[in-house]
Amino acid sequence: MDLISYMQQTGKAAREAAARLAAADTGAKNAALLAIAEALAAERASLLAANAEDMSRGHERGLDAALLDRLELTAPRIDAMLEGLEQVAGLPDPIGQIDDLRYMPSGIRVGRMRVPLGVIGIIYESRPNVTIDAASLCLKSGNATILRGGSEALASNQAIGRCIARGLAEAGLPEAAIQVLDTPDRAAVGELVRMPEYVDVIVPRGGKGLIERISSEATVPVIKHLDGNCHVYIAAEADLDMAQSITLNAKTQRYGTCNTLETLLVDSAVAAEVLPGLAAALVTAGVELRGCEQTRELVEAAVPAEESDWYEEYLGPVLAVRVVSGLEEAIHHINRYGSKHTDAIVTRDHAAAMRFLREVDSSSVMVNASTRFADGFEYGLGAEIGISTDKLHARGPVGLEGLTSRKYVVLGEGQTRQ
Amino acid sequence: MDLISYMQQTGKAAREAAARLAAADTGAKNAALLAIAEALAAERASLLAANAEDMSRGHERGLDAALLDRLELTAPRIDAMLEGLEQVAGLPDPIGQIDDLRYMPSGIRVGRMRVPLGVIGIIYESRPNVTIDAASLCLKSGNATILRGGSEALASNQAIGRCIARGLAEAGLPEAAIQVLDTPDRAAVGELVRMPEYVDVIVPRGGKGLIERISSEATVPVIKHLDGNCHVYIAAEADLDMAQSITLNAKTQRYGTCNTLETLLVDSAVAAEVLPGLAAALVTAGVELRGCEQTRELVEAAVPAEESDWYEEYLGPVLAVRVVSGLEEAIHHINRYGSKHTDAIVTRDHAAAMRFLREVDSSSVMVNASTRFADGFEYGLGAEIGISTDKLHARGPVGLEGLTSRKYVVLGEGQTRQ
Repeated sequence: MDLISYMQQTGKAAREAAARLAAADTGAKNAALLAIAEALAAERASLLAANAEDMSRGHERGLDAALLDRLELTAPRIDAMLEGLEQVAGLPDPIGQIDDLRYMPSGIRVGRMRVPLGVIGIIYESRPNVTIDAASLCLKSGNATILRGGSEALASNQAIGRCIARGLAEAGLPEAAIQVLDTPDRAAVGELVRMPEYVDVIVPRGGKGLIERISSEATVPVIKHLDGNCHVYIAAEADLDMAQSITLNAKTQRYGTCNTLETLLVDSAVAAEVLPGLAAALVTAGVELRGCEQTRELVEAAVPAEESDWYEEYLGPVLAVRVVSGLEEAIHHINRYGSKHTDAIVTRDHAAAMRFLREVDSSSVMVNASTRFADGFEYGLGAEIGISTDKLHARGPVGLEGLTSRKYVVLGEGQTRQ
Repeated sequence: MDLISYMQQTGKAAREAAARLAAADTGAKNAALLAIAEALAAERASLLAANAEDMSRGHERGLDAALLDRLELTAPRIDAMLEGLEQVAGLPDPIGQIDDLRYMPSGIRVGRMRVPLGVIGIIYESRPNVTIDAASLCLKSGNATILRGGSEALASNQAIGRCIARGLAEAGLPEAAIQVLDTPDRAAVGELVRMPEYVDVIVPRGGKGLIERISSEATVPVIKHLDGNCHVYIAAEADLDMAQSITLNAKTQRYGTCNTLETLLVDSAVAAEVLPGLAAALVTAGVELRGCEQTRELVEAAVPAEESDWYEEYLGPVLAVRVVSGLEEAIHHINRYGSKHTDAIVTRDHAAAMRFLREVDSSSVMVNASTRFADGFEYGLGAEIGISTDKLHARGPVGLEGLTSRKYVVLGEGQTRQ
């Protein structure tokens, strides 16, 4: 079968399965999640064998060490998948919940019912565990899923896909509810993101290049985040010990995550007091500093920052530092150079905190907390499928709720419009 | 200045105004709404004069009577604009509201703050009152707006735009918060919908042709509805008097609205009892009936329905009628042929009602009420900017809330991530 027919058939099957899944009760969805976990546990050996195939092909193709590490399935990684499935089974089912049901003057009652989006396409790179993470969240939220992993993980993902199919069948749910594409052809992605008749939303997970390419090609809506250029602003009224510990944590706890601090803004009123010690601690931790002129007067170790540094997501041990004249300039800098991901103020001044919360146009805004908290688990969502820096629909960490929509329900006793 | 520079300059000014508007308090926004109303009241004569210009140009160009009627400004229509502004000023301000603020195990508190989307582009046809309706909702929800009315209403919209500018200035808000495009060039629409750097969302209001064209050209997200192919399903357990009055109201109260009934589904268990009398009442009201074979056995007046009738939004005195074997077939028919707008069941059976609510995939689903209730005012939204049949972001009637987004706010006392 040619690629276009294959994708059309996959889409059509997903659309049909979505209607059945939308009507499935919580018990059936949880049973499927647990049956998938059981199937994975029973198939450990074949999962590891399939992954070994991918790994040896990856070695042959000369994939780099970081990519090979992400590609590898190990016993603890399989255990983590099983735990993830059990966790998602334990989350409350958002589907069918009716909120805000109120009587209107006409006598009708109007409320909003949470419903699945329909069919979700997930496009991701090497980690095979994403197959289970994404599938479980989509299933629990009543959506059918089409999964497209990296070609380097094809054998692993196919093996996982067989376990998923077994779990769905055992729970009496249609196998097309979760489909793992079995072609390495890159053109499949192009088809997937241009089938609005079969796919309601695309969630890409991967590097910026992948996400930009998908967004520019897609005719289906995309839930995405591109950059995480996060800021901490140490305000004039900051507790300086707190400012130091938040800055160190936000920058150095993990370098490669999207909620890692990339530019530190320091109020000129406290720069002389806080910057030398804080800079020393950062340098000791191995961080390279790139500073504005005022910063460099206070911190000998800082090299000059270029204009481009304010836009940069380093994803590594580098930090841009700028001294600002006050709250106004800090907000302006963040809204101009930032990526609308996560930004924090350290301050004891209530009015400054409230203004920062309101005026910084980012998906997460924080007072006196590390940007590293921007995460579905830390926010109590139970799990996340990604972080959205879009404004429409889902914004910030996206959990089950972000994979749903609300429709209006009207309950009457025969009312007609006057 | 050429068109592209003009649109870029308009977009840039809107983006800058949006930041100021997002920070504006409720008092300033309400003061502007009331000051715009005062300016319109003071400028009645010049509004009518400008509209007379548009009307005489319209007559010359041979516009049809329906379009000329929509284009005309009259004293009562100006009064309605003033009332609309006062009503929107009276609505609660959604911006800044923080919901679901909860402590997490780490000690941080996480909540969600409602914020404006940013810049909203509104594209509409002849009615000049849309200029005020749309501007007032966008202003109250803290968004900057770029308004693009029909070229036939250019003079009227410019006159209204001058009143808006005066009202904004009096309240100390930037005039670029609401900009009315002053070019009749159709290419301006093409530019507006392809400026994602300056425009966050487009709301088109008008015929299906306009909306389809905009959706296919836009790189900015569009909140839209295309069709209103609405259904009433008279179930086996329906109260048949209620079924008759709901059907008559949904079909005949107004023919041209998007929430008007277009296809009636009747359960075969009650078809013989309900259809003949109901059909007679519809025919008396002037409605042409197009029926399936079973319908035509019961209703002599019905002409044969073609497959295409099930997809049709007649927007006139025509109704398609189909006898179905039960709830399952009714839901299947609606999800297959409908437009995901508004669909109702008439039944006394609780389980059937619940299943219909859950499984019909439309923006409004109703039990024992007329589809004509699908409307922002009837739903208690205070006002509406349109009805969305999309699933992402806003679904159903879109009021102030649909023009906003929610960002995460995190309140800590120095917490860092472990």
